Amino acid sequence: MKKGTIKGFSKLNKRGKIKWIVENFFKDPEAVMHELVSYWHGSEEQQKVLDGFSENTISNFPMPFSVAPNFVINDQVYAIPMVIEESSVVAAAASAARYWMDRGGFKATVLSTIKVGQIHLSCLQDFSILSSWFDSNKKAILDSCCDVTANMVERGGGILGAQLLSFSEEEDYYQIRIQFETCDSMGANFINTVLETIAQTLVARHQNDFGDQSHLQIIMCILSNYTPESLVRASVSCPIHKLGKVAGLSPLQFAHRFAKAVRIAEIDPYRATTHNKGIFNGIDAVVLATGNDFRAVEACGHTYAARDGQYRSLSHCMVDETHFTFWLEIPMAIGTVGGLTKIHPIAKRSIEMLGNPSAQQLMQIITAVGLAQNFAAIRSLVTTGIQKGHMKMHLSNLLNQLKATEAEFRMAVEYFKDKVVSHKAVHDFLSILRSPDVPQEETE
Amino acid sequence: MKKGTIKGFSKLNKRGKIKWIVENFFKDPEAVMHELVSYWHGSEEQQKVLDGFSENTISNFPMPFSVAPNFVINDQVYAIPMVIEESSVVAAAASAARYWMDRGGFKATVLSTIKVGQIHLSCLQDFSILSSWFDSNKKAILDSCCDVTANMVERGGGILGAQLLSFSEEEDYYQIRIQFETCDSMGANFINTVLETIAQTLVARHQNDFGDQSHLQIIMCILSNYTPESLVRASVSCPIHKLGKVAGLSPLQFAHRFAKAVRIAEIDPYRATTHNKGIFNGIDAVVLATGNDFRAVEACGHTYAARDGQYRSLSHCMVDETHFTFWLEIPMAIGTVGGLTKIHPIAKRSIEMLGNPSAQQLMQIITAVGLAQNFAAIRSLVTTGIQKGHMKMHLSNLLNQLKATEAEFRMAVEYFKDKVVSHKAVHDFLSILRSPDVPQEETE
Repeated sequence: MKKGTIKGFSKLNKRGKIKWIVENFFKDPEAVMHELVSYWHGSEEQQKVLDGFSENTISNFPMPFSVAPNFVINDQVYAIPMVIEESSVVAAAASAARYWMDRGGFKATVLSTIKVGQIHLSCLQDFSILSSWFDSNKKAILDSCCDVTANMVERGGGILGAQLLSFSEEEDYYQIRIQFETCDSMGANFINTVLETIAQTLVARHQNDFGDQSHLQIIMCILSNYTPESLVRASVSCPIHKLGKVAGLSPLQFAHRFAKAVRIAEIDPYRATTHNKGIFNGIDAVVLATGNDFRAVEACGHTYAARDGQYRSLSHCMVDETHFTFWLEIPMAIGTVGGLTKIHPIAKRSIEMLGNPSAQQLMQIITAVGLAQNFAAIRSLVTTGIQKGHMKMHLSNLLNQLKATEAEFRMAVEYFKDKVVSHKAVHDFLSILRSPDVPQEETE
Repeated sequence: MKKGTIKGFSKLNKRGKIKWIVENFFKDPEAVMHELVSYWHGSEEQQKVLDGFSENTISNFPMPFSVAPNFVINDQVYAIPMVIEESSVVAAAASAARYWMDRGGFKATVLSTIKVGQIHLSCLQDFSILSSWFDSNKKAILDSCCDVTANMVERGGGILGAQLLSFSEEEDYYQIRIQFETCDSMGANFINTVLETIAQTLVARHQNDFGDQSHLQIIMCILSNYTPESLVRASVSCPIHKLGKVAGLSPLQFAHRFAKAVRIAEIDPYRATTHNKGIFNGIDAVVLATGNDFRAVEACGHTYAARDGQYRSLSHCMVDETHFTFWLEIPMAIGTVGGLTKIHPIAKRSIEMLGNPSAQQLMQIITAVGLAQNFAAIRSLVTTGIQKGHMKMHLSNLLNQLKATEAEFRMAVEYFKDKVVSHKAVHDFLSILRSPDVPQEETE
């Protein structure tokens, strides 16, 4: 075995894992072990639940748990739980929420809720033969999983339809695409189990009807994270004059600058990427806080942004003679039951903070927060610029970390008004301040 | 004020914020307050640092901090820190690492490291006039920020070039696209500060030369998260026979099934989305663990996946007569200095666990983990199916949460072998087991 490799790591207990890690990869094993343990939860039972979410866990990675109050969505007031490590995201969301609260709030609608599963097949048969066989056997094949779907059907969900597809780019390859309604669950486990069950029936029946010659093989079965028909729309709108004066701009000037910024993200992929990234700052913060899977929501949203052949903005803006309207349309598959939503202790509290919403309500909330985030970012960008707020936060983080006193804090804020804030620069600044040659200001 | 809305929330202290939240949005305020406080770090000073990362923080949201050992990347051994709430991701990464450790490990190369910034302009001038003016003033304009870039230039970075662009879809709109080298930092703060400085010079010089008539206005300045020329490649390769027997398949059968699965993700966006989502399971876990920004990495990677007009797989596979090769090419902008990397206490330890890599080394590590994750997922999908492992983990999470005894654990594992695992189903199962009518097995 090479140095630093190990057999049976997963079988060590947690202290054993930490011991091996700190001894092999750290210069100060004792201090690191102590620090990692300091992040465990005080209750052993609670910590056991947290450790169960993943494998080879040695500690908790703390993410800030924040709240953005004053969100009015479909006339309902929410305080939004957000989990995000990037400074100024929560402040921006809260500020946009407050702004729109006085202007009618956010409106959101779920346009569709269809989830997708795929069975990928390799088969030597002609598409026409397989296709007609599939059509006449479809009902029996889909019905074969009714034990598995019974619970979901009772809740109003289940299988909605299925199609056999062929792809000109790849011979011998066919796909069965299946649509699902999964109610308040994201549906990954349900869909995957259904697909694997159906696939077994499919192969058995096909072999029964055609024997081995046509050689139908399952390559794989899995849900698709691309769900363009699980679509939600959030919008804000008000008469232009109600926008008020924004950072010295008249309401009309602001509306046009804002619309132009959105338009740019519609035509330039380099800008669209950053623009949508800002939307996901808000979306992911709520997705994480509610125990949902942000990789799934990201992948789905970005694929959707590229659906017409060019990657574009997910949000849009219209300024007509009287009104300003700004909206976001995005597909997402999330749940309020299943997965970690009710298992993660803080995620469970997030769901509760939101009034135990249905999955559709949570889709609306998440999308409204994404739109709010986008609104706040563009408003900053087209007025004061984004750096002012960012640098202030970054400086404050660094000063906290370097244990600056209040007096040092004040001097640093003044000094860095027109300079790039970096760890080194702030460190150097404090070193000079703290050198014995500098007269020390009185501090508490 | 509507019920549930508030003025000045951000000005309350942390206990004040929690008090307002729990009293307005929870049925059991005391219990929630107690629970939120129980997630604070034991050291007040440490907690203050954590609270500084975001705004309106009321607690920490614990994510599992895990380790995937045995990663051999460019002949160097790594234990990889991973932060991910989805079960089986870390186990899969560790398993793929172990598999490739005996087959030459991962090879990774950084192909380019160019970051991008954009100044968006509105201007009534003809493109040709503005363009020739820009070319003759470019040097002076770029030089105007040399105070801001001095430090970065010293470290080997700075501005690499700049171009004025026009877009046929939008009149009066031009863009200055600027390329940067930002060394070991992700560069967002640096690039944004440079852009805002340059923009001021640009406007001043333009006004000086043309006066107000041509009305050049800055719409906004900001980095682009799309960095297709900050590109990294990771690969694994071995003679086909060395793949060994995989879940009953011969090495050659496995290689072809695997390649077919990758091929499907190259041609079908519905599959590509899920395929790439799996890659990001690994990528984001390391991005998060090292204090980098996963929204930026996600947005960049997905836009790149759609660069030829159709959203496709980011990884590729080639099986020739003798060899199996599997690789991933993805752009990303990450850092090992700046941002949270050295401020977040656990992120700092992650960077240390990886041997304090440069940004380029971290790009290689992250990409290798993404490839490993993808390999493990496809290997499961084309052999045993993905549900087996997933459901096992999910069941175990639920049983932990419901405080199942070891005996109940064993019975549940047996019972759920062929059933869909859900919170309700496991809860019902345990309720029946625990009802007074059922004879209780002896437990410790």
